[in-house]
Parts: sequence; structure tokens; C-alpha cells
Amino acid sequence: MCGIFGIYSYERLNVAKKIYYGLFALQHRGQEGAGIATSDGKNIHYYKNIGLVTDVFKNETLQNLFGYIGIGHVRYSTTGGKAVENCQPFVVKSSFGNIAIAHNGDLVNSDELRRELEMKGHIFTSSTDSEVIAQLLVRELLKTSDKIEAIKNTLKKLVGAYSLLIMFNDSLIAVRDPWGFKPLCIGRDESNIYISSEDCALTTLDAEFVKDIEPGEIIEIKDGEIISHKLDYGVSEYNPVNVDVPCIYRGAATCMFEYVYFARPDSTIDGISVYKVRKRIGKILAKEHPVDADVVSPIPDSGVTFALGFSEESGIPYYEGLIKNRYVGRTFILPSQNERELAVRLKLSPVKSVLEGKRVVLVDDSIVRGTTSRRIVNMVRKAGAKEVHLRIGCPKIISPCYYGIDMATKKELIASNKTEEEIGKAIGVDSIGYLSLEGLVKAIGRKDLCLACVTGKYPTEVNFEKILGRE
Amino acid sequence: MCGIFGIYSYERLNVAKKIYYGLFALQHRGQEGAGIATSDGKNIHYYKNIGLVTDVFKNETLQNLFGYIGIGHVRYSTTGGKAVENCQPFVVKSSFGNIAIAHNGDLVNSDELRRELEMKGHIFTSSTDSEVIAQLLVRELLKTSDKIEAIKNTLKKLVGAYSLLIMFNDSLIAVRDPWGFKPLCIGRDESNIYISSEDCALTTLDAEFVKDIEPGEIIEIKDGEIISHKLDYGVSEYNPVNVDVPCIYRGAATCMFEYVYFARPDSTIDGISVYKVRKRIGKILAKEHPVDADVVSPIPDSGVTFALGFSEESGIPYYEGLIKNRYVGRTFILPSQNERELAVRLKLSPVKSVLEGKRVVLVDDSIVRGTTSRRIVNMVRKAGAKEVHLRIGCPKIISPCYYGIDMATKKELIASNKTEEEIGKAIGVDSIGYLSLEGLVKAIGRKDLCLACVTGKYPTEVNFEKILGRE
Amino acid sequence: MCGIFGIYSYERLNVAKKIYYGLFALQHRGQEGAGIATSDGKNIHYYKNIGLVTDVFKNETLQNLFGYIGIGHVRYSTTGGKAVENCQPFVVKSSFGNIAIAHNGDLVNSDELRRELEMKGHIFTSSTDSEVIAQLLVRELLKTSDKIEAIKNTLKKLVGAYSLLIMFNDSLIAVRDPWGFKPLCIGRDESNIYISSEDCALTTLDAEFVKDIEPGEIIEIKDGEIISHKLDYGVSEYNPVNVDVPCIYRGAATCMFEYVYFARPDSTIDGISVYKVRKRIGKILAKEHPVDADVVSPIPDSGVTFALGFSEESGIPYYEGLIKNRYVGRTFILPSQNERELAVRLKLSPVKSVLEGKRVVLVDDSIVRGTTSRRIVNMVRKAGAKEVHLRIGCPKIISPCYYGIDMATKKELIASNKTEEEIGKAIGVDSIGYLSLEGLVKAIGRKDLCLACVTGKYPTEVNFEKILGRE
Amino acid sequence: MCGIFGIYSYERLNVAKKIYYGLFALQHRGQEGAGIATSDGKNIHYYKNIGLVTDVFKNETLQNLFGYIGIGHVRYSTTGGKAVENCQPFVVKSSFGNIAIAHNGDLVNSDELRRELEMKGHIFTSSTDSEVIAQLLVRELLKTSDKIEAIKNTLKKLVGAYSLLIMFNDSLIAVRDPWGFKPLCIGRDESNIYISSEDCALTTLDAEFVKDIEPGEIIEIKDGEIISHKLDYGVSEYNPVNVDVPCIYRGAATCMFEYVYFARPDSTIDGISVYKVRKRIGKILAKEHPVDADVVSPIPDSGVTFALGFSEESGIPYYEGLIKNRYVGRTFILPSQNERELAVRLKLSPVKSVLEGKRVVLVDDSIVRGTTSRRIVNMVRKAGAKEVHLRIGCPKIISPCYYGIDMATKKELIASNKTEEEIGKAIGVDSIGYLSLEGLVKAIGRKDLCLACVTGKYPTEVNFEKILGRE
Repeated sequence: MCGIFGIYSYERLNVAKKIYYGLFALQHRGQEGAGIATSDGKNIHYYKNIGLVTDVFKNETLQNLFGYIGIGHVRYSTTGGKAVENCQPFVVKSSFGNIAIAHNGDLVNSDELRRELEMKGHIFTSSTDSEVIAQLLVRELLKTSDKIEAIKNTLKKLVGAYSLLIMFNDSLIAVRDPWGFKPLCIGRDESNIYISSEDCALTTLDAEFVKDIEPGEIIEIKDGEIISHKLDYGVSEYNPVNVDVPCIYRGAATCMFEYVYFARPDSTIDGISVYKVRKRIGKILAKEHPVDADVVSPIPDSGVTFALGFSEESGIPYYEGLIKNRYVGRTFILPSQNERELAVRLKLSPVKSVLEGKRVVLVDDSIVRGTTSRRIVNMVRKAGAKEVHLRIGCPKIISPCYYGIDMATKKELIASNKTEEEIGKAIGVDSIGYLSLEGLVKAIGRKDLCLACVTGKYPTEVNFEKILGRE
Repeated sequence: MCGIFGIYSYERLNVAKKIYYGLFALQHRGQEGAGIATSDGKNIHYYKNIGLVTDVFKNETLQNLFGYIGIGHVRYSTTGGKAVENCQPFVVKSSFGNIAIAHNGDLVNSDELRRELEMKGHIFTSSTDSEVIAQLLVRELLKTSDKIEAIKNTLKKLVGAYSLLIMFNDSLIAVRDPWGFKPLCIGRDESNIYISSEDCALTTLDAEFVKDIEPGEIIEIKDGEIISHKLDYGVSEYNPVNVDVPCIYRGAATCMFEYVYFARPDSTIDGISVYKVRKRIGKILAKEHPVDADVVSPIPDSGVTFALGFSEESGIPYYEGLIKNRYVGRTFILPSQNERELAVRLKLSPVKSVLEGKRVVLVDDSIVRGTTSRRIVNMVRKAGAKEVHLRIGCPKIISPCYYGIDMATKKELIASNKTEEEIGKAIGVDSIGYLSLEGLVKAIGRKDLCLACVTGKYPTEVNFEKILGRE
Repeated sequence: MCGIFGIYSYERLNVAKKIYYGLFALQHRGQEGAGIATSDGKNIHYYKNIGLVTDVFKNETLQNLFGYIGIGHVRYSTTGGKAVENCQPFVVKSSFGNIAIAHNGDLVNSDELRRELEMKGHIFTSSTDSEVIAQLLVRELLKTSDKIEAIKNTLKKLVGAYSLLIMFNDSLIAVRDPWGFKPLCIGRDESNIYISSEDCALTTLDAEFVKDIEPGEIIEIKDGEIISHKLDYGVSEYNPVNVDVPCIYRGAATCMFEYVYFARPDSTIDGISVYKVRKRIGKILAKEHPVDADVVSPIPDSGVTFALGFSEESGIPYYEGLIKNRYVGRTFILPSQNERELAVRLKLSPVKSVLEGKRVVLVDDSIVRGTTSRRIVNMVRKAGAKEVHLRIGCPKIISPCYYGIDMATKKELIASNKTEEEIGKAIGVDSIGYLSLEGLVKAIGRKDLCLACVTGKYPTEVNFEKILGRE
Repeated sequence: MCGIFGIYSYERLNVAKKIYYGLFALQHRGQEGAGIATSDGKNIHYYKNIGLVTDVFKNETLQNLFGYIGIGHVRYSTTGGKAVENCQPFVVKSSFGNIAIAHNGDLVNSDELRRELEMKGHIFTSSTDSEVIAQLLVRELLKTSDKIEAIKNTLKKLVGAYSLLIMFNDSLIAVRDPWGFKPLCIGRDESNIYISSEDCALTTLDAEFVKDIEPGEIIEIKDGEIISHKLDYGVSEYNPVNVDVPCIYRGAATCMFEYVYFARPDSTIDGISVYKVRKRIGKILAKEHPVDADVVSPIPDSGVTFALGFSEESGIPYYEGLIKNRYVGRTFILPSQNERELAVRLKLSPVKSVLEGKRVVLVDDSIVRGTTSRRIVNMVRKAGAKEVHLRIGCPKIISPCYYGIDMATKKELIASNKTEEEIGKAIGVDSIGYLSLEGLVKAIGRKDLCLACVTGKYPTEVNFEKILGRE
């Protein structure tokens, strides 16, 4: 994951504050760290740290980030441990001037690339893919003075997911990998060009959406011009699922989890509204797993739109049976080990008047860990529910992701070695239903998706050594 | 406003951490400051400061708050300016031992009481009603060694809203004023008695709800006993509205805004579910102000349940047309004066795919300031809405509140001197509709409400000097 | 202890920043907390908190402290535990307008006064004498509209040490108790009148020293006038020591520890230079306890001037045999229990080249705890000293102080039940010598001193109940 | 400047806390930033940040720094701006395992080395010499598996000052450059080997001093052994001053400023006590520039030992005529532009009783800026001094330093283009006297010093391009 945001101001005004707001709109894509780098044409200025955008940047810090070109990054929490070194943009002072890189995605072959570079005497100060890309890029810049050429030569070495922002002293370059794993789009207003992971940040800044950057496209912004370049190598055929639905296929492998979970509902990715996908998922779920019940309730926040769709399709009235404490998310003193249920109740609270005596359908996006789901189900039963039925808006996740989603967070551990029935039993529900693969593709309305986590078929070669290392 | 929470542990275990969690569950009732005072039978320990519960209390602080009796307070943001002196509980070291007081509500005659006390040589270090009550109480304790007698004599002097927690060295006392303005209830588990502003905090701590404290009731918890005392003076008849609805009337004057806005939806106040009231409001609103439209959307968060009710009654499908950034609420660098619209867009973002080409009904609980509403309506139109209809789940507020709700925050300034039609015009909607007074009473299902802010009729005498001072 | 500083600006300019600098110059008098209160003629503004002056006040805070009259306070660390409530000035909003009080000293009869007030229904929110004085003053103000009359009536009730600053809306009043326990002086420049605990703060602000406030004097500053009032009751004869030295006797009982330890060396108290007193102490010590040695070295910082005097008188060369780490004083991670010697070495480090093979005289102001002294002596021996002789610039402390010096910090525990010889043995020195009482009086050059801690004779009646409570 | 400290624990105990205390003892060598890196044999752990050692490290941070080998660094404030990237140790994850480097000194040819590396495709993330050394070292490690060989090959490329600590996964290496510019010594106790910039840190940790590392010596600590290696190239003859004093000459070029100003007085560098050097400087100064006066006073803190020596030699009594506020050094609100004199008075305060009517000799180590000296002299005169004579314990600084001392801080701007007489006049003293070059060498007692800043003759070739860039 992670979110990236860049601006080029034609009027040469400072862009740091606008980037700050853009990152604020993309905060859902990464909460571990944040950074902004700006260029005034000669010098580079940057600041990055652990924490939310609002914690990392204070007025004084922003005011020192001079420059009319800038890129920002919000970092997703991964297993690698929090460290300021791993925050981005990664900034390099080289003989070719300053270079700053912000990266969303995960390279499959980064370990191999690191090893190769180390064998040539290079050293690394972080564990980011951005640093690998920076080192490769600088080597290519020694061979050719054409920056786009150097970038193309660099990208040819990369396998995996990368939506990139590269800032030179006087230009801003945006890249989306040939598979189009991660979203990236362009916006503009009277005086600026914007690049953003999601168009919701364009809306926040009142910028006009221009277009999604295409898989394999390189956008160069310089001297008042926007030039589109194309990576000249294709992606090998990847048609992960044989679904008999009339839908788009453009040969990409865009992450389905962006639609299901990660992206903000007000975003539109490659022309498809995230909100509508989620509502359709709810409807298809109701068709695939119908149930005789009195109320449909989401597990907030992620289940809300699915549950609305389920209600609309099934005719079972929608109620908020669980209320989320709006102050959750702040650091607070954790309950002790033997108060785990308290931890759940601090976050979610049942509405007894809604649940009492009712047959309840609970809808969520996934079962992260069986234990939390079981506690929620217990809580709902304790509030008086007669029956509890669980519906999940995504197929069972069975394979790890190598393109940027941390499976330690999102992997449905419980799903990997149990049948649906066994899972339902473990959680203690009266019935359980996962969205089918066909249902998912139909709901999204396109077939050129990366579905590796639910099918086990990967759109790129996968580094098996790395897989072993992870498991 | 404000929220209060108290615990008495029969097993003499430390209660501070439980109070912390209770206050966390009541955080919505006050975000300006927080405090906890505990008694170990001999000594009193306390800490209070500006900020959210999670900011004010760190592990080390909590661990120093020894004691098996304790009371806590979350302070509502008022015009008086932030100051640690005004945080509660108010703690007194007197010849009668330590006394700590936490107060929810607003006394109408506090200025007069202060003046009287000052004339007797008393001084004040804060601007809280708690300090006034403490001074009065200590004077009464000089006259009688019977604490309940002293409390009764003190309460007789108070006019206005007060849900109180009073902690002595070895007992905990809870009081709800004779009008029952503010909610207050009792809970228990195997080893503790709890007092809470709302029962949602009991649910969080897995405590059993015992009962709502009645208007004019004094609950004393001491030596393993719970004793109920009664204030022996009645409330003058207050029947604010002649509504022909079959509903409860018990002579109280409970704040209707608790049901409409303040209390958490999972709370039940005086036997009535807040969530159900809000859903009923939405339904009645749909009946009172029907409209031919394509989608119903709330203005989040407060409009959600109203909008669900409106949708259910009208049959118009419910969509989330506006997405709230979940990181709003954190301190962030404000946009400059000429970027006011940005401030709204940072908070709320339109879902174009939902709104485009549609006739939209927006539902909210009130119109705080016309300007924000106008900006939201503009945003919705800009996202493509063909028509925008606004429905408000509360009658127009026309009179100030003297019982604890800060009208600088919630008063519908725009409502006070304009007709509904004029308001709709100013905001730029195609139609507007406020809930009727009858509709409100019907939705809540009880008549013994304080409706002063929407009728101008006050349940107590009102200090006119104070009114002048405020306006 | 504690330090107080006040300003009245004739030109009605804001005084908060100047008070900040004044408190910075008085920081040595109290490091636990700091506060400033200002009056703009109508409103009072104040801020106080735990910590050093530089930690408590930031630019923004100071800028909000409007007003042309102001008083400040630095709080001495006492056993009572750190609490913001005990920081001063103590601010009262009463019917007589705002009153702020800052106090240096300790009342002997504060417990009795508290009890009396409590019996009249007063409550207390802090454990400061300032609050007691404020309550008494407000009661007197009810009886007479003459503020000075009310202050005099209040002061008559106080027994013990008090240098006071009292700020009303439009005037500033300074008081020194009839015994003159604590110093207090007046300064001025073109546009301001200053009151300060020590004249060193006047020097810092480039103000001219006007005079020491006399014991029993009340200084009123108002409307461009400075009026001196006199408390009309005398102090009972107190001549604590029959010393045959030609020196000043004015009937006061000024704390000798101000000269020996507390005041800054660049201050002059009641006309006597603190620096010169300390140098004379060193000289007298050399005469009283001569020793055949090679080097004289102070234990820094407090022993420096004594050691210089000792060297000058004895002819033994002065060397810095121990270097103090200049970063001591900052919060740092403490060594564990079994690394106590490390704690001493982190603070002080021996200069081997100075100590090796030498007979060393170490000079200090007191023996706080025998353990630290023993460790220092060990360190000096380990660095190669052949002999170690200890000289102390103050008589043995044998009785507690009731006038403001915390004996938990300064009391020579080791002195109370041991002879000099026994102490020397316990510490491991070759010889030890304390300054004599006569030597002390001679060095200070005045007889009207409070010498209670070294003689056991108190200049006021002492509350025996309180003594028992403390021991 | 900067300070470095390393430990190798034979008993494989964690060393981070001991390094913390070692850095605390070396804090005077650098206040801008601090860092510690440790190795547990396999993994490297590190933390570094802007600020004092006590600010950067909290208990929790230290506890996570596992490992029995460790190195630490305190960073000197330089013109390059504060940035966490420039804090050290510099940590590299390379194919040869982890490498951490801490550096004290300044390379003369770092710009050239950077350019060369950049031409080979290397990138830089900081502006430290450590990063340059790390990159060179990794390249050499590709050529030979012998670490010492690789280090030697790396060092051959470096011109300038470097005392280095290099930590590999399982060994600790210490290097002092062939000129011996900066001090570095070894210590030990029962279970650890220590390397420290100064032996004062050994004293703090109660470690035994083993020896000064010799110029051009490489110390390797590994598997319980300490092996000494020697760089096999010599230093070209550098005999900067033809002084007819019988003193040591070993062909080194050790920085004279370490003796005069930087090192702690309790340190001994290359067998010579810093304290004794400073006392001798004072004595020689008294001989070289005698004056008829009443008191000798230092400008604290740096002038103290000089002034004691001056007093001892001249017989003029030593007095502390200026008192330094001990809270200076903490961040405080600065006086405004037109209150510059206040800034000086906040730091230093005159003791009137010492200065009044006296002919005063002030002694300092250097004249940093004429303005501050002039203000101090004014202050002393205003306090009543009849005459003011200034004596400086160091020759006039006339040339920039390229070996690690920031001339923006220490360069006597006033000295560079004025005669002594002119300087005295500008400052407003009755007479002025600088220590002579001969006097300096005699006081230190060795001739193999770097005296470039006072003679203009440099012990190494100097990069003229760099000089131009700086001036």
C-alpha cells in the first residue's frame, strides 16, 4: 500500500501546503509515516517522520519546504518495524542533482536487485524499494543524459507493483507499472498539475480529474508541458479467472483489494466507482447467500456499504446494530491480556434496541482474525440477537500478496486451512457466506484484475526464495 | 453538556483504569478536558487537564490514582476558554475530609450564588458550577454532620440542570436534579457499582444496567449499601407543548437534544432507545416533508440514522453521497481565510457516482451555520446533483439554552430571524423541511421534555440578568 | 524558599516578558514550578505549571499575558509532591475584583489558620500558604474598603516567614514580614518599578537598585506613586547568639542560609554582599581549622567561593580537583541501584593530574548526606590523593527549619546524631572541620539573623503540633 | 569536533546504557545530535536524532538497543543545518553485513572523494564524511575479504582529520589518522574494552586507562583479542613553529585547541593533562602581559583555569567578578534585536562588591566576536571597575581550520584584520594581551601540534577549491 501525491506549479508558487492537504485526503492509504520533498529548481527541501500527516507536519516545518515542485508519501504500516529511515520520499544528492522518489507498491525482485547492487559496491541505508530504484536510476543516468531513457532502462529491471513519483530539480515524473497494480491519476487546475494515488485527493483540492495514468505509462511534467511516454515492453497474458461476465479486459492486473477495501469510497479507479462496486458486492452477496432474517447490520466501518447493498437486494431492513466509538484510532492505554473482550467493546458497542430478539445478518469485508469476529458475534448474541448470520464481501484469501499488501494485517488466517462451514462454526454464527470469485469480478465490472490472493495465480513471476523467506 | 462516571468497588480494588474506559465511552459528551479523582478511604488522588481522555491520561498517571472509589468527568467545550482550572472533578480539602465533585449541566442561578458566597468572604478559583456547589456544601456540613441532610440543603439552593457525582473519603453520592434535565443511571457487576451519564459506558465495561436515577433522586453508596434518598420538593408544573400524542408524562423536563444529538445512539435514556428515536425522526420527517427524489443521503455523521429512517419511510434509496474523512478531528494546519471551501472538502467529500444526475435529499440534525450548509449544498451540486432537498431532524431553535448546551456551537443562527423558506433560499436548496414540534415529541415518545430552545418556554425560572449578559 | 518578582509599568506596557527574564534570573530559588499573573487594569491573565521557567513559558503563552502590572513566582521543590495546584501566583476572582498572590517563605501557623477558616466554611484547593493568605485577605476586605488596612489586619494573623507580592486590578503591593526572614528589594528604571527577591534580577534587567524592603514594611505601588506603610507591631527580642563581634543588629531574624547557600553570589542582601560573605567564610574556616596540605579544591558548585577564601587565607594553592559535568541538571536515565557510584561520577570527575600524590583540602557548604560525601572522598583518594581533609562552610545543622527551607533536602542527617569526629570517620577523611557559629556571624557581619537550624532557638513561637507531624 | 565512544563486552552483555553514559561524559564535544548503534553479533540496532544525549535517548529506546558491541557519537553544531540524516553513527546494510561508522574530524578531500564516487554511480543521503568513508570501505571489501586490508586501503584515500570507530557484526575497530589530529584512547575494565575521544569518559565509567591510540594506529577488537595494526605510510614533516622550548616532538599534528578549549579539563591527551596546560597558559600569560591590577577575574566558564594561573603567577587575587546563570544553555525566549545587552546579562552578571573601584584583569580563552566582549567590558565598568585589562589564553586566530573546528563559531573575526591594539580599542579595554605562539607551545609542552589556525601553515595539503567555497 502507501499513498503518493505530487504537484507541479506553473506559477512557481510553493506547493508544500497543498501536498499536505493531498496527503491528508490519502491518509487512509498509510498511517505509519509521512513525508514531503520539494524543489525550488535548485535546492531540495524535505521532511519525513513516523506518524500521521497531521502529527508529522507542523506549520513551521511546512513553511520551510520551499519549491514549486513537490512530492509526498504516506507510509503503510508493515512488519518491518517503524523507522524514520523507511519513510519516504527517498532523497538523493547525486552528481545529477537532487532526486526524490516516492513509491507505492512492492517489487517482487527487490532482494535480487539489492544483492546485485551490493556486489557492485553500493550500500543501503533503508529497507525501501525507493532506495533500490534510486540506485539503479543513478547508474543509468551515468550512461545517458536523457532522463526518460534512464528511467525506462531502470524500470525494465523492476518486477512487481510500482506507482512512482520521481522529482528532479526541475521536473516531475509519474510512472505506473505495466501491470497497473496500483492506481495513479492526473488532475489539474488553473495553475497546477497534480498526480495522486486516488482522485479523492483531487476532489479535496478542487482540482479537475484529467485521466488515470495507464499501465506502463510515464508522465513527464516540465517547463509547462505534460509529455506521455510509454514503456515499450508488454505484460505477459494474465487472465486469472474464467468468468462468464460481460466486462472490461485491458490486459492489466489491477489489485482487486483497492476496490474492496483500501481505496476511499468516493474514489473512482480506472473509470469504476469504488462506492458502486461495494454496493454491488452487497447485492450479489444477498443473491449468493440469501437468508431469512429481520435486520441487516454492518460491522463498521468497512461493512457499511456492503450491508446497504445486501439490504437493498434482500429487502431486509438495514439497521446500525453496532456503533463504533469515534475516538478509536487514538493511542490509548490498552486493556490487559485478560480483558481482550473489553478491547472489542471499547471499539464497538451493540445497540440492544435494534438487536434484541432479532435474526441478524452481519456484513463485513473480511474475517481478519477469527477471534475478533467471535467476540463481536458473542456481543451481538448477548445483546439479544436470536440468530446471527455472517456475510463477507470478498472471497476467502488463500495466498500471500507480493505486491504491497501486508498479509500479517489482512490475511484471513482462519480461511487458509478451514472450510466455510468450519469457519462459521469457529466464530459461532448460524450461517456464513463469502462472496464468490465470479461475484467479485461481476461487482467490479472488469476482468483485468490481480486476484492472486484469492486464486493463487500471480500475474508476474514470483520470487520463490522470497516466498520461502516470508512464510 | 459534559459526561460523568463514577465507581465504587466493594472489593476495594483500584478503580481509576475502569473510570478511564468509562470516560472513553463518554468522550462524545465533552472533548475539552478530562479528570479523575479517586479515594483510598483516607487520601484523595486526582489529575485533570485540557484535552481528550486519551491525551490527558497516560499509564503512569493512572497508576498513581489509587483508591476504590472514584469519579471522572469529560468537559464540553464552552466559550469560557480552555483552562485547566475549569476541568473537573473539583477537589476540596476541607475540615470534613476531602470532597470531589463532578457536574453535568448548568445552574441558572450560579451568578447569584457566587455573589452571595463572595459577600460572605468566599473566594473562587474557577468558573465552574462545581466550585459553587462545593462551597455551599461545605457550609451546610458545618451545620449538620448528616451528609445527606447537608446535600439536600445545598441542592435546595440550586436552580437549573445538575447531574452530580459527589465523592467523600468513604462514600459516593449521585444526584439528578428534580427536573431530570440530564440523564444519569446506575449499573453494577459482581464487585462494583457504577454511575454513568449514559448506559453505553456500562455496556463498554460489561456492567449490568440497574436503573435510571429518577429526577430528584439522591443515590448514596457506602459500606456495601446503595441507599436511595428523595429531594422533598417538587417541580412546578411544566407541560411545554400541547401535543395530541399518546405518550409518557412523568413531570420531568429532560433535554430533548440528548435524544436528537448528544447521546450516543446505543444509549437508552429513561427507558427510550436513542437509536430508535432517531430512526423515528427520519420517518416522521419523510411524512411531514415528502419529496420526489432519487436518493436520500445523510450529512455524516449526525444525519445518518435520520436519513435511514427517511429512506425506509419514503422508499427512496439510501446512499452515502458524502464521505467523511476519518482523520478529521485531529489538529491540523487550517486552510487560510480564503480557502474556507477547502476546509469543508477536507472534512466531507462527495461521491460523484452517487450524486450525478440525481435528485438528492440531504438529511441533517440541524443547521449549525448557514455558511457550512451552503458550501455542502454547492459541493453536492458541483458533483452533478440535479436537485437538492434539505431535511432537518429537529424543529428550528429559537431560544437560548440555560441548562448546559452552548448555543454558540449549536444554535441555528440562521433560524432565529428567518422563515424556513428564507433559510432554504439562503442555503441554495430546492426545498427545505424542519421536523415539527409534534413530530419531535411523537418520535421521542414522551412529553416531559425540556423543549425550551424550540418553544421559548422554560421549565424553571430563568435569571434574566444572565440572559442579558449573554446576548 | 521560592523566588518572587513583580513589575508595575507606568507607561502601561506589557510586563510579562520582563517578568519572565526576572524569574529566569531567580531560577536558582526554585525549580519545581513557575507562574506569572498580569493585570491590564480590568482583567487578570495567568499561567503556571510544573517545570523550569524556560519549560513553562513559551512565546505564545507569554504573548497572551497582557497587562502593565504583573507578578511571578518560581517554586522550590518540596516534599509535598509536584502538583500544578501548588504553583503560584494563587489567583482569586472575588467580589473585590481579581487578586493574585505570590509568596516566599513558610508560615508557622498555617495549619491553625486553615482549620479556623475551614470552621467558617472555607475550602482549599491547594496546600499553599498563598491560598490561606488570600482567604484571610478577602474576609478582611469585606470589613474595610481600605486595602492596606485589610492587608495589615491579615498580616497580623500570620506567624512565620513571608515575602509577599499581592496584585489587585490596579495596584501592586509588596510585603516583607516583621522578622525579615526572606529578602525582598525594590528597583526601578525610567518606566517601571520592580520588586524582586534578590537584586541580581534587577541587574539582569538593567534596573537600578532602590532599596531593600524593611522587615515589617508594606510597599504600595499605584497610580504612579510608591507609598511605604509600616506594620505597627514589633517583633519580640530575638538575639540568638552571644557573639563578641562588632556587627549590625537591627532586630531582624534574616535567614543565614540565604548568605551561605541560597542567594546568588552576585546578590547583595540588606546591604551585605553574598559573594564577600562566602569568601570571608572560607578565610575564617582556614583560621578555625588550619591544615598542612598541598591543594585546596572545592566540591563544585557550592564550595567554590569558600575554597577560594580558604586558599587565600591559608596560602595553600587553589586547584579545581573535581570537574562538574555542565550537563548535569537535565533529566537523564538514572543508573541502577547498584551503580550509585556511577551517579556521583556522572556529576563530578576528579582531575588526576591535580590530585595525584597530594594532600587535599576539600571545601563544601554542607554535608547533605554522608553517602555522597563518602563517595566523593573515595573518588579523590582513588585519583591518588594522599590525604583528604574536609572543611564545611557552615555550622552543623541540628534543628528543623519552619520558615521555608526543606530539611529533607538540606538537613545534614549525618550531623544530627554524630560528633564532628564521628562524621569525619564515617566519610573517611583524615580531618574534618565545620565553621563555628561565631565564625558564621562574623563572616556575615550582622547579628540579627535567624540561626534556628544551627542553634535550635526560634525567633517566633513554633507550632509544636506541626513539628511532631513532620518528624 | 564531535565525540565518539565505543564498547566491546567480552561477557556479551548489552552495552547501550554504558555508551549512553560515555556520551554524556563527552557531551561537551557536540550538542547538536547524538546516536548509538549496537550489534548483537547478527543484527544491528541503532537510534540517532537531533538534540542532547539526554533528550535523544529515553529508557525505552536504550532498552531496544541490544548487543554486546556498540559505538556512539555526539555531533558538533556546524553550519550545515540540523538534520537527522547528518547524525551518526552512519549505518549501512551491505552484502558484507552491517557496518556502522562514527567519525570525529573533517576530511580535507571529502568533496573530491564524493565526486569520484558519484561518477561511479554512488548516491549520498547525508553530508557526512562517515558516508563517504562507508562507501569507500564497501568498495574495498569487494576486493579483499581481509577487513583490516580493506580499511587500510580506504584510509589511504583520506586526507585530513579522522578519529574513527567502525563496527562490523562481530568486531569493533578504532582508527586515529596518521597526523593524530584528534584524540582517541583505549580503556578497559574486567569485562569490557572501551574506546573514547577523551579519557574523562573512562573515568566516568570507572574504566582503567590503557593507552592513547597512536597516530596512524588501527585497533581491532574481536573474539577477546585486541590487535594493533599500523598504517604503513608516514606523515610528511610538519614542524609548524620554531620554538626554543625543550618539548616533545613525535611528528604528529595534534589540534592545539583540544588543550586550550575543547577537551574537558579532567582529560589527559597524549600524556599531557589538559587542566595543567590551562593553568600554565594563565601563568605564561601573566609573564608575557603583566599588569598592575587589584583583581583577576575569569569570563566564565572557559576563562576560569587561565585566570587561576594568572592569579597564581602575578599574585593578584582571584575573584569571581562575573557570575554565570547556571540555567543558561536551555532553550529560552530570546530578547528582541534591540535588547542584545539583555542577552549578555541573562548569561553573565557582575558582582558589584568585587568589581567596584577596582582595576580588573579579565581572562578568557578567545575573543569570539568583539561585540559580546565589548558588552561584558561595559558591564564590568558599569559595576564600578576603574580599569579593565583583557588577557586571552591563545594566540590570535588568523586562518581557517579544515580539520573539524567550525570557524563560524570560534574564529576571532575581530582578530583577522586588526592589530592587538586596535582590538583592545574596539572592545574598550585599558590593555589587551594575547598568549604568544611560543607561550602556547611551552604551556602544552609538545611541539607536534597542528597550529594552522594561528600560523597559516597546514600539516596536510589543503584543497584550495574548498577554501574558496568556504570563504
